[in-house]
Amino acid sequence: MSKKSDVDCFFSPKGVAIVGASQTPGKIGHEIVRNIKLSGFTGGVFPVNPNAETVLDLKCYRNISDVQAEVDLAVIAVPAGLVEGAVRDCVKKGVKGAIIITSGFSEVGDKGLEEKVVSLARPGLRIIGPNTFGVFYAGSRLNATFGPGKVLRGKTAFITQSGALGLALMDWTTEEKYGVSAIVSIGNKADVDDADLVEFFSRDPSTSSILIYMEGLRDGRKFFEASRRAVRKKPIVVIKAGRSARGAQAASSHTGSIAGQDAIFTAAFEQAGIMRAEGMTQAFDWIQALNENPAPKGENIVIVTNGGGLGVLATDRCELLGLKPAELSNDLKQEIQAITPSFGSVKNPVDLTANADDALYGKVLDLVLRRSDIDGVIALFCQTANIDPTLVAQAMLDARTRDALEKPIVAAFVGGHLSQVAYSRMLEKKFAVYPTAERAVDAMYALMARHRQLEHFKAGGGAA
Amino acid sequence: MSKKSDVDCFFSPKGVAIVGASQTPGKIGHEIVRNIKLSGFTGGVFPVNPNAETVLDLKCYRNISDVQAEVDLAVIAVPAGLVEGAVRDCVKKGVKGAIIITSGFSEVGDKGLEEKVVSLARPGLRIIGPNTFGVFYAGSRLNATFGPGKVLRGKTAFITQSGALGLALMDWTTEEKYGVSAIVSIGNKADVDDADLVEFFSRDPSTSSILIYMEGLRDGRKFFEASRRAVRKKPIVVIKAGRSARGAQAASSHTGSIAGQDAIFTAAFEQAGIMRAEGMTQAFDWIQALNENPAPKGENIVIVTNGGGLGVLATDRCELLGLKPAELSNDLKQEIQAITPSFGSVKNPVDLTANADDALYGKVLDLVLRRSDIDGVIALFCQTANIDPTLVAQAMLDARTRDALEKPIVAAFVGGHLSQVAYSRMLEKKFAVYPTAERAVDAMYALMARHRQLEHFKAGGGAA
Repeated sequence: MSKKSDVDCFFSPKGVAIVGASQTPGKIGHEIVRNIKLSGFTGGVFPVNPNAETVLDLKCYRNISDVQAEVDLAVIAVPAGLVEGAVRDCVKKGVKGAIIITSGFSEVGDKGLEEKVVSLARPGLRIIGPNTFGVFYAGSRLNATFGPGKVLRGKTAFITQSGALGLALMDWTTEEKYGVSAIVSIGNKADVDDADLVEFFSRDPSTSSILIYMEGLRDGRKFFEASRRAVRKKPIVVIKAGRSARGAQAASSHTGSIAGQDAIFTAAFEQAGIMRAEGMTQAFDWIQALNENPAPKGENIVIVTNGGGLGVLATDRCELLGLKPAELSNDLKQEIQAITPSFGSVKNPVDLTANADDALYGKVLDLVLRRSDIDGVIALFCQTANIDPTLVAQAMLDARTRDALEKPIVAAFVGGHLSQVAYSRMLEKKFAVYPTAERAVDAMYALMARHRQLEHFKAGGGAA
Repeated sequence: MSKKSDVDCFFSPKGVAIVGASQTPGKIGHEIVRNIKLSGFTGGVFPVNPNAETVLDLKCYRNISDVQAEVDLAVIAVPAGLVEGAVRDCVKKGVKGAIIITSGFSEVGDKGLEEKVVSLARPGLRIIGPNTFGVFYAGSRLNATFGPGKVLRGKTAFITQSGALGLALMDWTTEEKYGVSAIVSIGNKADVDDADLVEFFSRDPSTSSILIYMEGLRDGRKFFEASRRAVRKKPIVVIKAGRSARGAQAASSHTGSIAGQDAIFTAAFEQAGIMRAEGMTQAFDWIQALNENPAPKGENIVIVTNGGGLGVLATDRCELLGLKPAELSNDLKQEIQAITPSFGSVKNPVDLTANADDALYGKVLDLVLRRSDIDGVIALFCQTANIDPTLVAQAMLDARTRDALEKPIVAAFVGGHLSQVAYSRMLEKKFAVYPTAERAVDAMYALMARHRQLEHFKAGGGAA
């Protein structure tokens, strides 16, 4: 297992050298310097390029050894043939971590060169990559990537084995207002692997959850052991690609990973307490719910809706996923009935009917959130002719605030433009909100899975 | 079975009376008059209310019998106690169809009143409802609903048993740029039912596909027979809610429907050739693909991507859904290789790597769309640092135009703001585009299902 200090240097370095810094906008060696410079990173930034005096107004060094200050992280973006020399220079300088951006190693079949580079680096220098787009870490405002310059800070550490997909999602998490605490493009995993990162992020105070896009694993045992420990502190969600025979083949020509028998992965994920998502949508839906909510303390879920159909769809999905809409107690039914002038259904789903306004939503949410026999709430809203969805959104936000986040609550808004506005505002306020009832139920499923896991731990059980 | 003329009056009436028209904005009887007036409907519009001279500057009548012109459609929005009289008046006037907006019938347990109203109406007057929000039909620009005034015209007829959900989706289809050819809030189905509407829409030239949100059926045999005939002309997608025991219970208190054994529905849908979607997202994803594409002529699908990870995820999903990414022929591989300077993979998925620009996308799409050994294309794009997604979107649109829509093509764009812009433009241009690779594959699955169905018909098979 990696020592504590091993990978810290990648996230909170005192000084960063960019080996292969470039003066030409658009070049990778330029974009990385620009992102580090603009991201608000307060440590030293040292471009290295024998043919430049400055890069982006920063003094440029001929060689990393010419930097007088401490350099604990190097980002290497030179052609493949020059990587070996760059790594030697890093070792000489006493650098602790190198992110090798350069591609052209094991992913194109050149395993020899990759192994040589790693052996040169050991034991003092840890390597992320090669074949990566870099590392973003919100905690130190370090954007050592050639990806988007603007990344929204959030609560999830995202580890990706796919570069292009990772870059696209880096942009996407900002656009969707999810944000990330960190993004690591893990590349060929020649040295630092998922296990090292899971261990680091499990003790990183700025990270609440860990999301991994994985095609293959080199050291399964190490990963699953690290994950078993980590899930006691925070949830881990994995998108494991290459599950089908053809997908595994595609993964093999993509990152050179051996995807392995999918059934074995499924069993191992389950045993380690890792939540395996079916795809990107589900993974991010789960993560959003887990980040913004406490796990429920029991199994009793209530669905509140203004549209019967939405309530039926949500109930179907609950049953499919093994969630149990609670039987409402008589006194709760009476409490609800007392505040609802015209009333649809006091069964669960609670159907407030299409006349329900923000005030009624607020009152009913207060009622159910305060009940000790209700453990979580799925609040659904269908846009109707005369109720403003943005007011209903505000009512949900206020109810959550009054509840002081004691209980999990997820929402869905279905409708036109005003519903989208409501949806966006709730996302901004870090409320787990979805565009369909089914996805809101999926989100509650993730929270319930976390509840069951925590109960299992309390009872003295292992990871799963 | 209903005669041809039976339900036509609901969609292309010569004159519409609104019984219970109101001068008060916000009231249902006001909103319906406003929507009909503003929607561009060119037939006669006759508000009926004994206590008003005019409604929205339209002359108001004391009774429908006072209208001198022909009235073939009445929208009834009076209190439940007055519906009976209104229906008698409609029969006397010779109205052919009545949409009964009023609620308070079988859905609250009053089956007797509902049956009485229907028996009064028969045989000359057909009834939609009661307990409905009305009918929208783009073909005659008739918006006889109290829902949104602005509805985008599209290719799908949407029949909904849930009022609130239907209203929300009415707004949503406009916001998402899908549009609809018609929306029918079918309500309690006291008379006109899904079967009548499926039959009508199957011969409606402005409708390419039929989407149904269904909780229960009164006359299953009639519906499945009508559907078996209709699917020979256009695809039918159903969201059948109340599939779980609890969901069925919720459906029962919502619309009074008996949801029935779900396994029986599943089998019957399959036999009738109806595509059953898991939920709203899948249903609309399918419909969008079916509306904007021809069915493939064979089973050979190619995935084109600039991100390996996205390709792997798509391949996994293909295998899960029984789609077969084609083995590319050697000459196709050579053709692709010849035009791609730096190349990722000539296997399927074709990985153009992160450097792929719009020109390369255009060329490769041309190549695969022209091949007789390729039947459909899934085009994926990950936003990268230096390629503008909107240009890639344009390249996909242009390739489709050059192909003259001979082959189905679906796309996914994953990324930040510019990807969302690209995505919106493609939606506007009626290109089946999705925010994840998995959903694009789901869309191709729907097209392949349609292909298999059409092959089955060609071979002389029955509906399924």
